[in-house]
Amino acid sequence: MDFEYSPKVQQLLNRLKKFMGEHIYPAEEAFHEQLRADPWGEPPLLSELKARAREQGLWNLFMPDPQFGAGLSNLEYAPLAEEMGKVVWSSEVFNCSAPDTGNMEVLARYGSPQQQKQWLAPLLAGEIRSAFAMTEPKVASSDATNIETSIVRDGDDYVINGHKFYISGLMNRRCRILIVMGKTDPTNPDRHRQQSQILVPTDTPGVEIIRPMTVFGYDDAPEGHAEVIFDNVRVPAANLILGEGRGFEIAQGRLGPGRIHHCMRLIGQAQRALEMMARRAEQRVVFGRRMSAQGSVREDIAKSACEIEQARLLTLKAADQMDKYGNKAARDLIAMIKIVAPQMACRVIDRAIQIHGAAGLSQDYNLAQHYAYARTVRLADGPDQVHMMQLGRNLAARYGAQD
Amino acid sequence: MDFEYSPKVQQLLNRLKKFMGEHIYPAEEAFHEQLRADPWGEPPLLSELKARAREQGLWNLFMPDPQFGAGLSNLEYAPLAEEMGKVVWSSEVFNCSAPDTGNMEVLARYGSPQQQKQWLAPLLAGEIRSAFAMTEPKVASSDATNIETSIVRDGDDYVINGHKFYISGLMNRRCRILIVMGKTDPTNPDRHRQQSQILVPTDTPGVEIIRPMTVFGYDDAPEGHAEVIFDNVRVPAANLILGEGRGFEIAQGRLGPGRIHHCMRLIGQAQRALEMMARRAEQRVVFGRRMSAQGSVREDIAKSACEIEQARLLTLKAADQMDKYGNKAARDLIAMIKIVAPQMACRVIDRAIQIHGAAGLSQDYNLAQHYAYARTVRLADGPDQVHMMQLGRNLAARYGAQD
Amino acid sequence: MDFEYSPKVQQLLNRLKKFMGEHIYPAEEAFHEQLRADPWGEPPLLSELKARAREQGLWNLFMPDPQFGAGLSNLEYAPLAEEMGKVVWSSEVFNCSAPDTGNMEVLARYGSPQQQKQWLAPLLAGEIRSAFAMTEPKVASSDATNIETSIVRDGDDYVINGHKFYISGLMNRRCRILIVMGKTDPTNPDRHRQQSQILVPTDTPGVEIIRPMTVFGYDDAPEGHAEVIFDNVRVPAANLILGEGRGFEIAQGRLGPGRIHHCMRLIGQAQRALEMMARRAEQRVVFGRRMSAQGSVREDIAKSACEIEQARLLTLKAADQMDKYGNKAARDLIAMIKIVAPQMACRVIDRAIQIHGAAGLSQDYNLAQHYAYARTVRLADGPDQVHMMQLGRNLAARYGAQD
Amino acid sequence: MDFEYSPKVQQLLNRLKKFMGEHIYPAEEAFHEQLRADPWGEPPLLSELKARAREQGLWNLFMPDPQFGAGLSNLEYAPLAEEMGKVVWSSEVFNCSAPDTGNMEVLARYGSPQQQKQWLAPLLAGEIRSAFAMTEPKVASSDATNIETSIVRDGDDYVINGHKFYISGLMNRRCRILIVMGKTDPTNPDRHRQQSQILVPTDTPGVEIIRPMTVFGYDDAPEGHAEVIFDNVRVPAANLILGEGRGFEIAQGRLGPGRIHHCMRLIGQAQRALEMMARRAEQRVVFGRRMSAQGSVREDIAKSACEIEQARLLTLKAADQMDKYGNKAARDLIAMIKIVAPQMACRVIDRAIQIHGAAGLSQDYNLAQHYAYARTVRLADGPDQVHMMQLGRNLAARYGAQD
Repeated sequence: MDFEYSPKVQQLLNRLKKFMGEHIYPAEEAFHEQLRADPWGEPPLLSELKARAREQGLWNLFMPDPQFGAGLSNLEYAPLAEEMGKVVWSSEVFNCSAPDTGNMEVLARYGSPQQQKQWLAPLLAGEIRSAFAMTEPKVASSDATNIETSIVRDGDDYVINGHKFYISGLMNRRCRILIVMGKTDPTNPDRHRQQSQILVPTDTPGVEIIRPMTVFGYDDAPEGHAEVIFDNVRVPAANLILGEGRGFEIAQGRLGPGRIHHCMRLIGQAQRALEMMARRAEQRVVFGRRMSAQGSVREDIAKSACEIEQARLLTLKAADQMDKYGNKAARDLIAMIKIVAPQMACRVIDRAIQIHGAAGLSQDYNLAQHYAYARTVRLADGPDQVHMMQLGRNLAARYGAQD
Repeated sequence: MDFEYSPKVQQLLNRLKKFMGEHIYPAEEAFHEQLRADPWGEPPLLSELKARAREQGLWNLFMPDPQFGAGLSNLEYAPLAEEMGKVVWSSEVFNCSAPDTGNMEVLARYGSPQQQKQWLAPLLAGEIRSAFAMTEPKVASSDATNIETSIVRDGDDYVINGHKFYISGLMNRRCRILIVMGKTDPTNPDRHRQQSQILVPTDTPGVEIIRPMTVFGYDDAPEGHAEVIFDNVRVPAANLILGEGRGFEIAQGRLGPGRIHHCMRLIGQAQRALEMMARRAEQRVVFGRRMSAQGSVREDIAKSACEIEQARLLTLKAADQMDKYGNKAARDLIAMIKIVAPQMACRVIDRAIQIHGAAGLSQDYNLAQHYAYARTVRLADGPDQVHMMQLGRNLAARYGAQD
Repeated sequence: MDFEYSPKVQQLLNRLKKFMGEHIYPAEEAFHEQLRADPWGEPPLLSELKARAREQGLWNLFMPDPQFGAGLSNLEYAPLAEEMGKVVWSSEVFNCSAPDTGNMEVLARYGSPQQQKQWLAPLLAGEIRSAFAMTEPKVASSDATNIETSIVRDGDDYVINGHKFYISGLMNRRCRILIVMGKTDPTNPDRHRQQSQILVPTDTPGVEIIRPMTVFGYDDAPEGHAEVIFDNVRVPAANLILGEGRGFEIAQGRLGPGRIHHCMRLIGQAQRALEMMARRAEQRVVFGRRMSAQGSVREDIAKSACEIEQARLLTLKAADQMDKYGNKAARDLIAMIKIVAPQMACRVIDRAIQIHGAAGLSQDYNLAQHYAYARTVRLADGPDQVHMMQLGRNLAARYGAQD
Repeated sequence: MDFEYSPKVQQLLNRLKKFMGEHIYPAEEAFHEQLRADPWGEPPLLSELKARAREQGLWNLFMPDPQFGAGLSNLEYAPLAEEMGKVVWSSEVFNCSAPDTGNMEVLARYGSPQQQKQWLAPLLAGEIRSAFAMTEPKVASSDATNIETSIVRDGDDYVINGHKFYISGLMNRRCRILIVMGKTDPTNPDRHRQQSQILVPTDTPGVEIIRPMTVFGYDDAPEGHAEVIFDNVRVPAANLILGEGRGFEIAQGRLGPGRIHHCMRLIGQAQRALEMMARRAEQRVVFGRRMSAQGSVREDIAKSACEIEQARLLTLKAADQMDKYGNKAARDLIAMIKIVAPQMACRVIDRAIQIHGAAGLSQDYNLAQHYAYARTVRLADGPDQVHMMQLGRNLAARYGAQD
């Protein structure tokens, strides 16, 4: 047992921190201004920063397969994801942003050579972006067996009909490819064999983007969250990933690493909020004393630090177990971090908002927007309650059998 | 002791609920569409609804002075404010929206006949709107003695210089008059005699609106929250309210009723969120069962109901004590509701969001926007911590003296 | 709507407070010493105080039927129960202690003239004490249909067999009569007609007291909580209350007022804890400042006051609704106070313990013992979860039907 | 970074678990019966188990100095302490129970050869027991500078006068030696040089044990918590540890490892409570379903598991940092675990109580007693608030300086 990052990770982390300090933090305000001018394109700053990061080898760090990227384990990548999490748009600078990361992993692991050539290559190069179309407005999509989008074989094609929303990334003009989850076999008695995943270029006729969905008033440009209708969308049969009925299996495969990444980013956000509240508390004077001399402010700082460090260690342990024993064996730990990290981040950021006063809610700090992101993750990939139900059931069964 | 509304209140409440049911709820979507077309004007729907409400005598219900309005006590008005709270923009339909209500009360109580004629009359008629300029970005404004805006006598005028933000209502084109809090006597050893309040028409030269501040990602149109600079703003000396050095006293006077109103609106929001989560839970099926059959959902509903009813009773009691014994005697109860109601509303609405899934965060429901409002009230009129500090100090002194 | 106690109640409350101040608080230490000498009898102090209270007409205040006692409504009795709650053993001084109160109400409402003469009369006179045997160790007794004790007709008698525990009051030598809940008709398809309640004198052969159960180490003398076995206990058929199959109905009838009483006592305990923590905070100096000047201590005091006042109002409203519309109509409010009050008391008392340091856990203050009592009530008459499940279900159904 | 126990630790842990399973768990009931017969002696079972543990080399595992014991690092010892924590009295079986462990470490590190020979040797052999007299009833002892006990040099002796309480272990007849914290130099301007620590045999004239203090209703036999008066207690000057004015320094030295041990034991208690609640939930049926099928029960289990695992990792990291960089460098992490672990254990055990119903509060399960222990640790070695204040201050200073 050892709680220190390896020299290799520590060295990468130092380089990443240096890059953040030199290029990302100083660009935060300019980035938002460029966004206001053109929300759904690529801000010029982003293009420049991506080129620079790629040059420095800070690129595709998330990709475990060394054939395609950095070849880091989950445990090694985790502190880097944390660091990137401190600025909500910085992951893309390193080509490490969701949902591209999950889509690239899916293509790397399950894609045909043709699919890899056509879509994985430009994604790895950061030339295009992608989205993953899973959630549907009309059903509780945390239960994948509820999904209603149909994928029907018709000659050499598949025809897709369905209605999805909160499809992150799809608002952006650079988003060229969608992985769509739907049912090819809705009456299969094995409810986990009904689903398939299929590649749909965004310019395919019938892909109709209805509107951007908001999150607490944010449109989350430049990615955005689209509502989209698939109206008789026709794609070649070769676009199916892995085979009919494998959609649930593919979805499971992407969830483990995806959750680790999300959670580490949230820990980065929370850590930044903690540091911001500490600084604000040192600077502001209320009723004749620095805020940092007030007991309740100190307690907020102390509690936040305790919660962050615990969530960080739990996430790192989950990563370690995934690396050593696989996603399935680490199932309970992955559920735990999905339950713990977003709620922790919400609490910590909320305290930081309170200490910043009205400004904490404004566009002048990232706190309110980070809160909105953290709050979203309590719902994304299944709401807290679903994970607690499954974790509770597993543990009751395990410990109940001991007696 | 009696926990039933009086027949008078019950009858008014029934009329208000009927109006809400017939005219407000059905207009919610259209209202937001009109806003998108022109955020900072008066949506046509609003004009129509105001006329109709005035016709029906549902007008100026907040105004305790029967000379100027409905002449209801705080206890009588409270359930009406709750009802209006269910739709975030509906208070204005009945000319009962902040900060106009507080401003009208100030003018009714402390305004000179000339000030009343010029500004109170059109406000009572709903022809113009107003704002209250208190919070400053550079100091912790919850401590009023920190305020830095200067109001300096110069001949027959006062000259105002300062920097304010989160001035609610000021973004709207119909906002014609500002009450500005500043210091006329910054070196007065009695720190509560340094401040004055002064009327500043919004078209006075030197009143420079910088930008709309956002709350989470909302601009809260049509009112908005302005950042504003007062750059050598010159107004006649007769615009001063009540006299030099009375600014703190006036501010105190408006806080009691203002807090009751805010809290009752929040209770209305929370009640609506509860009813929405109950309905959603009855309709959605997850993992083979209606959500309302799940234990954790039932607990969320039950806890929310318990918290709402308690906060409601506490607020009504505070109103009753204010009516019977005055704001000063009811000081601790007013602090209590300011501490309790916003946190309660945040918790309840957050649970409702969770039960609605991603849609709960979207523009399709009012939940995320109501959350943003409730979260704001945890900071407006002093953050929770300030009220807890004062309440705790008062109670320690009172009970500590018993021994 | 009115939040003031009526003059009648205020006057009774003043008399009760005077009695507490003159006779109960000064006797707390001596009472515990007398208990140590003889835990399961009647401490001499108790006899003296009972005589004095009876003399002053502070007697049977809980009894709503004026034929038998004070004839107060629930709303009128509530503040008196709160006051008595401040000293855990003081309710008995006024012949207002559980489970006698519930048993007397049952006998007054459902008892035959013979049952009333034999058992109600001496209970009303404070000459004997009683217990109510419901909870069983082997089944989840919060679900009354689980109860396994059998009551079998045999000629002119009933024969009772069963195993009960946590039978409060039964350890005391003055406990002469038990009301036993069991099944006379265990196969009745209507699961709420299987149960009956029957009177069992404690000296009946076969009533075997096994041991006192403890609660957090406390034996809760002089009442105590007995584990008891009913081994072929034979009593005359006339001992059955109301009739076969009416046991569930009788149990429901006693729960409403019983819960109000419990909750008001808890509010009294919490109020006392608040006042104690305020005094301690005023007196103790830590790190150079009075504890009451520390922000976190003030927050603890403020939060406690907010929570107590809310729970008090909720309980009073439940009492008011019971008085006006009956237990059934007030069902949801009764569930609410059962959920709210014990958790509130636990939180408040826990904060008071923390502020008292190690002494807060000791025999020198009542805090730890009061905590144990409040914690018990989270389980007595059904655990929190059961009430939340039912309340949540009711509300989901009610609001769900509105749409 | 690695989250697996080393083979050495895993092997020791397996042996310890085997011992617990074969000898400790089966003896729990008998142990309590022996205690009832003679609370303040050594239960025969304990003597037997100690001999057996010593034989098997499961002895003095806590002692980092290989000259005196197992020579394990904090990180290595932590999981063993967790395991022992599962049965509140089992640490003594392995001669690893507080306050002996702290006292032995103090003597090993700071004791003179004579002090070591006379007191450390029999303590290491498990022949006698010891206590540490720090807390005083009249002052807030979490601030060591408040301590009032005086240690005055008189010729070749020191004379001690003072009043202490909650002196754990001192009620037991086998307790032969006290380390007493007092002031030798109460007017020293350096407030951390006023204190000294001195060895006082329990049979020294003037050591007057007043009574056992209780925690909730527990006397915590066989150790107990004594109130004690030092009335002109005279001991040789050679009994002073390390030198005059070094008392605070010695106290600091013992706190780090002491806290790790306490926290790990609490994690063991919480883990056991989790397993108990899981088993109970699998076995009990309420309202027609197994408790483990109820959502709220599953959530309780899931939350508990998340909290335990996080606290465990945090404690292990603190141990690792202490081992690598020393107590001072690990100061913030040690504060964190002191804040986190007891509150976590209280929450988890409280949930387990709730799921056990009334029995959870009784003498039939260890839950209520473990709760009392965990609750005590929130006060022992400084209340939560003191640690949060210091941690918050440190972090505000550190992060505040970054900008």
